[in-house]
Amino acid sequence: MNQDRSILQRHRAGYVPKGPELLLARPGNLRVVEGEAPACPDPDISGQFPHSSGKPVLTFRDGVEPVSTAALRVGVVLSGGQAPGGHNVIAGLLDGLLAAHPDSKLFGFLAGPGGILRGETVELTPEVVEPYRNTGGFDIIGSGRDKIEGDQQLQAAMNSCAELKLDGLVVIGGDDSNTNAAVMAEYFLAHGSRTSVIGVPKTIDGDLMNDWVEQSFGFDTATKVYSELIGNICRDAHSAKKYWHFIKLMGRSASHVTLECAMQIRPDVTLIGEEVEAKGMTLRQVAGTVVDAVIRRAEAGRNYGVCLVPEGLIEFIPEVGVLIRRLNDLLAKHDADKVVGMLPADSAEVFKELPEGIARQLLIDRDSHGNVQVSRIDTEKLLLELAAEQVKGKVKFSSQAHFFGYEGRCSAPSNFDADYTACLGRIAAVLLANGRTGYMCGVRQLSDPATDWEPCAVPVTALLHTETRHGERKPVIEKALVDLDGPVFQAFARQRESWVLGDCYLFPGPIQFFGPAEVVDRSTATLQLRSV
Amino acid sequence: MNQDRSILQRHRAGYVPKGPELLLARPGNLRVVEGEAPACPDPDISGQFPHSSGKPVLTFRDGVEPVSTAALRVGVVLSGGQAPGGHNVIAGLLDGLLAAHPDSKLFGFLAGPGGILRGETVELTPEVVEPYRNTGGFDIIGSGRDKIEGDQQLQAAMNSCAELKLDGLVVIGGDDSNTNAAVMAEYFLAHGSRTSVIGVPKTIDGDLMNDWVEQSFGFDTATKVYSELIGNICRDAHSAKKYWHFIKLMGRSASHVTLECAMQIRPDVTLIGEEVEAKGMTLRQVAGTVVDAVIRRAEAGRNYGVCLVPEGLIEFIPEVGVLIRRLNDLLAKHDADKVVGMLPADSAEVFKELPEGIARQLLIDRDSHGNVQVSRIDTEKLLLELAAEQVKGKVKFSSQAHFFGYEGRCSAPSNFDADYTACLGRIAAVLLANGRTGYMCGVRQLSDPATDWEPCAVPVTALLHTETRHGERKPVIEKALVDLDGPVFQAFARQRESWVLGDCYLFPGPIQFFGPAEVVDRSTATLQLRSV
Repeated sequence: MNQDRSILQRHRAGYVPKGPELLLARPGNLRVVEGEAPACPDPDISGQFPHSSGKPVLTFRDGVEPVSTAALRVGVVLSGGQAPGGHNVIAGLLDGLLAAHPDSKLFGFLAGPGGILRGETVELTPEVVEPYRNTGGFDIIGSGRDKIEGDQQLQAAMNSCAELKLDGLVVIGGDDSNTNAAVMAEYFLAHGSRTSVIGVPKTIDGDLMNDWVEQSFGFDTATKVYSELIGNICRDAHSAKKYWHFIKLMGRSASHVTLECAMQIRPDVTLIGEEVEAKGMTLRQVAGTVVDAVIRRAEAGRNYGVCLVPEGLIEFIPEVGVLIRRLNDLLAKHDADKVVGMLPADSAEVFKELPEGIARQLLIDRDSHGNVQVSRIDTEKLLLELAAEQVKGKVKFSSQAHFFGYEGRCSAPSNFDADYTACLGRIAAVLLANGRTGYMCGVRQLSDPATDWEPCAVPVTALLHTETRHGERKPVIEKALVDLDGPVFQAFARQRESWVLGDCYLFPGPIQFFGPAEVVDRSTATLQLRSV
Repeated sequence: MNQDRSILQRHRAGYVPKGPELLLARPGNLRVVEGEAPACPDPDISGQFPHSSGKPVLTFRDGVEPVSTAALRVGVVLSGGQAPGGHNVIAGLLDGLLAAHPDSKLFGFLAGPGGILRGETVELTPEVVEPYRNTGGFDIIGSGRDKIEGDQQLQAAMNSCAELKLDGLVVIGGDDSNTNAAVMAEYFLAHGSRTSVIGVPKTIDGDLMNDWVEQSFGFDTATKVYSELIGNICRDAHSAKKYWHFIKLMGRSASHVTLECAMQIRPDVTLIGEEVEAKGMTLRQVAGTVVDAVIRRAEAGRNYGVCLVPEGLIEFIPEVGVLIRRLNDLLAKHDADKVVGMLPADSAEVFKELPEGIARQLLIDRDSHGNVQVSRIDTEKLLLELAAEQVKGKVKFSSQAHFFGYEGRCSAPSNFDADYTACLGRIAAVLLANGRTGYMCGVRQLSDPATDWEPCAVPVTALLHTETRHGERKPVIEKALVDLDGPVFQAFARQRESWVLGDCYLFPGPIQFFGPAEVVDRSTATLQLRSV
């Protein structure tokens, strides 16, 4: 890509990420402190990870003298969907490696894990990395969705690392990619490879979360971009007094993104997938929640509003989840025009309720395995059409549909994400300088000022359990869904009723990079509420 | 609405708009200077506006002593779609009126021009206005799309003004609303009303532009919001290397918004409606422009890209414009399922080329007059589907469609729009204090620092010509379309070929309210290029 930059890019390039002093000033001096080994929740895991499970949690202390280390050779790979801050992980990693030894070298595997298999790399020198500091995107080396599975691929990955004489491999990715990092760490140990493998928790979805990883990187920035836009739309709705805006938000299964945005903006209606499932709501009942608000607001003279819809909602509606699974089974064997007649009565009833466009999407819009493409279902339009049908003749109802996702994945990182990712990269470097493998980098006390953050690392195996997939027991990191008893949902649940009629909108505005600390360093409501 | 505010809102509330010193420090001292009367381009206008046409352009000078004026009573109305800065026009107007006389009073007509007819007002005291300073939206008094037409309505408007004993009425709106202001000014003069009428040029579309109004307010902020998002999507496309993103942008007929965004971001393909019309391109040729880029990029290994599509494009394609007009005529008399067979051969051919979903939209999605709803046509999806069809089997092509519009209309105003609108409001106050009517407020030298701006006012009649509508000669302000010989389009045309294969993306980032002047006070490329 050309190296021309916008005015803001030029000014932002010079931003120096904040963090705990010992991590920023002397990462080459840091020594690890071993804590307790977390209890492994699944006994199958220790069997599958004999070399890498049972390890202690790590924190860090200043070693005063630099840790004695030879120059390190490290590879890094970006895996899965983009998240703001990826470039700063790489920059922080490079800074940490050079602090450990000035002759250290960093190599980037191109286009995701597939780049490891193909042995495609580029050296990431300070000159190469410099223009990417504090920028969005994953374009410095690209990303990909390949998984490294099975002996043959694991062997190929090990060979790639051996050929480059890598001391370490850093995998920046979500739950699957970190699981994959653990699998590689185990395989490499078992087969005498000298390459340590470290994971870095990335995803805008916010569903990679545990006691050591309080928030995945990217969530802060992406939710701020969406909140800016949703706030603007609320102001438009409140000014024009004409439309109900139905806004679908990216975030895969979990509703964290939607919940965070709701806490920032206080829209009229917010649907949370996890609650819909817990209550066993039908599609008609979910639409009924919206209809109820539409009618109550109309009675108060307000024929406008904003409704947030998490991308994963549709699968959380039990009867729709069943319908989709049945359609998938039937479509595997029969033509699309035949399957509707073959559905059991309950699913046939649900299918009949669907507006025509959505029903067509279910039957026609399928992925390469022939499955219904859930993420392509226009859930916001489905709800809008169901609501329109139910309020017809009762109240005036005009609507607009929106989907926000791609707008936030590659935004330049907020201060929070720029700081956090620079720290995560340095932590990875310290772990490698200390010869650790199979760890995921973490930071605790993320709701405190960055100088007070507490770097740590958790053995990935401590986060794994096994699930049967295609008849095999596979290790997985369970996705952290919205906890309906947790402080974030509870805070939302306490307030939402007052939002229905209150026009309580807040307007968070665009991400700011200069100005008062409480503006530029503001973290998420999710973090703040969870830390109380 | 509740008065809770986000952290950024609280900090932004204290922003003091910049502007020419004499306008900010002593607006109550300003005297008007009469320049030349602009040549009236249409002789019908002087006939229709005998009392208010032929007036001179006005500029201002410091009168040293305050202009002697009694307390002024002024009404203000917001008309049409939201644009960032509307609240600051009202705040600037109030500041200017109070500077002219501390007992002056401002009244807001509720929910647009209809509020004038209904005589519905709220007093806009400093306390009422305060929380709206530097905020987006039109929600302080609401807006509406009513037009005040015909003797009966004009009389009702005059009565409303008389009842409130208004010295002045300020109409904040686009071309139609400013025309309406001129009609009221004439009617009020002709019928002995003491109420002066002043217009303020608003529209995010950028199509209200002339020698005195270099840019309508709202255009700066809205294009910056869209540019942030489009830049993020370009970064996503360049990182994921997976999708072509087709992005439709609001802006009505004119392509100014799209052209401005293109200059800020340098996307792979940008379609400009005015050029399509000038070249007489067919739908197939327009799609061909996209297909050509898709194929050339694919040959360079780039199966991704970004294409900008102005909202008004579809009507600029001559054969589609003809098709839409013919469908409107036929649908007025026949059922939707009959009309396709009744189309002349050339239009039938165009209709046949349309993807099914779009064809259905044309036939079914009609407005209350039975006309095809052009603004609801998913032009971005139309192009995407036509392109997909034409590249099928040749290159890999996956795509995503976006529409940005509502996100930008109610954003909090950029510094530029906050400053500009505060000045426009004060200019309106000075004009009223000086007893002027039938003028539109303007500012020249907008590409200079705000302190060097040159306030002015132009008689609206100098911008009018007559057109036949429904058999009557009606005054209209011609919409300023993109000038294909002008400096903005020419700068775009010189560079765009290099953007097709160059991955030349710039990432403008979010609007900044704090920080270096060249970041926070940056105006549009459109303004800068036109001022050279």
